[in-house]
Amino acid sequence: MLMEFNVKILNQKYCVALDDKDELQHLKNEFVLPNSIIYLGGNTLGARPHSSSALTQQFIAHEWDEKLAHHLSNEDYHTELPRDLGNKIAGLIGANNDEVMVADSTALNLFKTLAAAIKIQAKKHPEARLIVAERDALPTDIHIIQSFIELHQQLYQLELIEHENELEQLLATGQVAVVVLSQIHHCTGRLKDLMTINRLIHQHFALVIWDLCQSVGVFPTQLNQSQADFAVGCTYKYLNGGPGAPAFLWVNEKHLTTFWDPLNAWNNHNNPLDIIDFYEPFTGLKRYMSAHQPIISMRLIECGLNIFAKTNLEAIRLKSLKLTDLFIELMEQECADFNFKLITPQEHQHRGGHLSYNHPFAYEICQALCARGVITDYREADIIRFAFAPLYIRYIDVWNTVQQIKSVMQNVEWQIKPYLLTHNINYD
Amino acid sequence: MLMEFNVKILNQKYCVALDDKDELQHLKNEFVLPNSIIYLGGNTLGARPHSSSALTQQFIAHEWDEKLAHHLSNEDYHTELPRDLGNKIAGLIGANNDEVMVADSTALNLFKTLAAAIKIQAKKHPEARLIVAERDALPTDIHIIQSFIELHQQLYQLELIEHENELEQLLATGQVAVVVLSQIHHCTGRLKDLMTINRLIHQHFALVIWDLCQSVGVFPTQLNQSQADFAVGCTYKYLNGGPGAPAFLWVNEKHLTTFWDPLNAWNNHNNPLDIIDFYEPFTGLKRYMSAHQPIISMRLIECGLNIFAKTNLEAIRLKSLKLTDLFIELMEQECADFNFKLITPQEHQHRGGHLSYNHPFAYEICQALCARGVITDYREADIIRFAFAPLYIRYIDVWNTVQQIKSVMQNVEWQIKPYLLTHNINYD
Repeated sequence: MLMEFNVKILNQKYCVALDDKDELQHLKNEFVLPNSIIYLGGNTLGARPHSSSALTQQFIAHEWDEKLAHHLSNEDYHTELPRDLGNKIAGLIGANNDEVMVADSTALNLFKTLAAAIKIQAKKHPEARLIVAERDALPTDIHIIQSFIELHQQLYQLELIEHENELEQLLATGQVAVVVLSQIHHCTGRLKDLMTINRLIHQHFALVIWDLCQSVGVFPTQLNQSQADFAVGCTYKYLNGGPGAPAFLWVNEKHLTTFWDPLNAWNNHNNPLDIIDFYEPFTGLKRYMSAHQPIISMRLIECGLNIFAKTNLEAIRLKSLKLTDLFIELMEQECADFNFKLITPQEHQHRGGHLSYNHPFAYEICQALCARGVITDYREADIIRFAFAPLYIRYIDVWNTVQQIKSVMQNVEWQIKPYLLTHNINYD
Repeated sequence: MLMEFNVKILNQKYCVALDDKDELQHLKNEFVLPNSIIYLGGNTLGARPHSSSALTQQFIAHEWDEKLAHHLSNEDYHTELPRDLGNKIAGLIGANNDEVMVADSTALNLFKTLAAAIKIQAKKHPEARLIVAERDALPTDIHIIQSFIELHQQLYQLELIEHENELEQLLATGQVAVVVLSQIHHCTGRLKDLMTINRLIHQHFALVIWDLCQSVGVFPTQLNQSQADFAVGCTYKYLNGGPGAPAFLWVNEKHLTTFWDPLNAWNNHNNPLDIIDFYEPFTGLKRYMSAHQPIISMRLIECGLNIFAKTNLEAIRLKSLKLTDLFIELMEQECADFNFKLITPQEHQHRGGHLSYNHPFAYEICQALCARGVITDYREADIIRFAFAPLYIRYIDVWNTVQQIKSVMQNVEWQIKPYLLTHNINYD
């Protein structure tokens, strides 16, 4: 990186020059961001697209009213929305058309894919009764697996692994039915290699479900190319779909006909208004969808996805790596004395979209940074997450963040009580 | 009804006089309704409250952005929303504070309450393995029960009853674990008596789950007084929460501590950010909530509920009965020659909020009425549903609807091909 402008010490001017050269820099204008803050929480809740305002007004002023006035005729529109949104996400995760569905929450989608995977395995490998996940996975994922097992009256067993190499040992027993993994770890930011892991899992006749929450929109995942089985992910982080926006679900085409949704209701039934005794699922993708979806929250997802359509994930990943490279180098140059320890891998092939640092006073530092308008994310134990969403984070933001961290540490601001720290928001 | 103004023939003037006397008439102004249509589909999708426009703008312009800027501090706000909305619904269904939660869809809430009820019964009455529902229940409900049973590998069995008296016979076998019933039938509009049915079910040690989709907001349900066990219902019909708005769930206080959500994830965990091995559910109401909720769709529900706070359900039920009385009488007076057959009970104690008529050309008549700006709802087989939402339907609307039906029948308009029928929408 340093070689790019042949400088020895990184400075503000250098960062401004990087922004000037940035092919994605105009996309920041697509978002509403207070100019008094630097928002590094995009892997928790994405920024708000400008177009969201007009879209909600349009929804309110036209669609709801139109739906009333054309009661009989427009049912199709809203049942097609999960598929239409899914098709817009497909290109971001290496999936084909009509393989992705937007509906429900990530947690419910994990439940559904787990039920589908277990149903396939119960036929093919009834002796395999282990469901494997990482001990430090997102607790949501673990809870969903636990409740799935409880619902099956302990017929299956959860095995939590501490390190990736334990996976191979477990697989070798021939007892593993399904493996649930996150592509990018929510805490450490470590990136896993789908191709290698999928091959290993399939060698032992197990199936894999990938949680893409921390990767979709910041890393070009290749689901089909790597021959994954199932994937789930959320739309409110890097995809900027809005608070609590519905999640997505992907199923490998080879499992599509055997896919079974344990929470089926209205919309995945071929004849939803018929009174029938037995469930006949849709023959296609629609069978993924459990029930009515919250339409305005669904519609808002389009705003973020339309911005992705103006660029490509290779450019986004390239900028993501340059932003995190710059932050790592600047932290070494400016904050080496302050006891921060990078826990995200340095190697590009193992690095996700955010950087996590360990510090004994991480929580207090987060609050002091927030008071200075730098929004980061605290995680147990003693971890600060910095997410650099390439669509709206500039190189100068990286420079300014490191300068703010330096000031917080030099002034020992993290010792000030939280309620004394305030910051004003300014959108002008 | 006829006696009220001592008239022999019901006429337009009489209906206008009823509107003038109507204590709820001002509430129609709370809704956006095109003045060129009469909207009788409020039991499918409620009308749009005026306040929805300002609320979405406020959400878009402030809450999303604020949430970014105060990343660390306002998590509580959104996790309290399901409970706050639930407390606003509690008074409409005879529930107490902190017994109702708004989250997920009706289908998922049925799944959750069914899992909870079965878990209670598996301990108390393990021999009871039947789940009873009505054969002509909403197909959603039946599909959810079927998939619940499939997930339990046929440990339980679904019994579909044709008539209410079959329920007692089944209960007498001592094999019934759970009964799922709708308070007001989606098709016939028949109203069930909770008190009598709950007593019968409990005499045989079974539990009951009530589907309130067709009753909430139009009938003063008494869940606690009638000692029901569980209830679910939607917010987008008479409550006017917006397309696909999240649903609600009620649990009798006595089951609250044993309630178990099989789809638990983030938010019903006491320490959602901790990494733990085993699920420890919230000790209170929060354990009902499966996962992140779509916030803007949640917030919109408030608009409709705030209108209910300006009146009471006794006044709403009174107007509902007067509207349906008037429609029945006018249909007899004006349309007796046209072969319509009322299938909703005439007796007030058995009549819900909508009226259903059978007609051999029901589907075609629905379309012809739609072309004349009268929005009704067609259901298989040969049924037209007319929903009279007391908050925004006037007596003059009832008069005009019957006149339009009369014209459609006299002009044989239902024989015209659907694509030749159009109507213009006019909000002026």
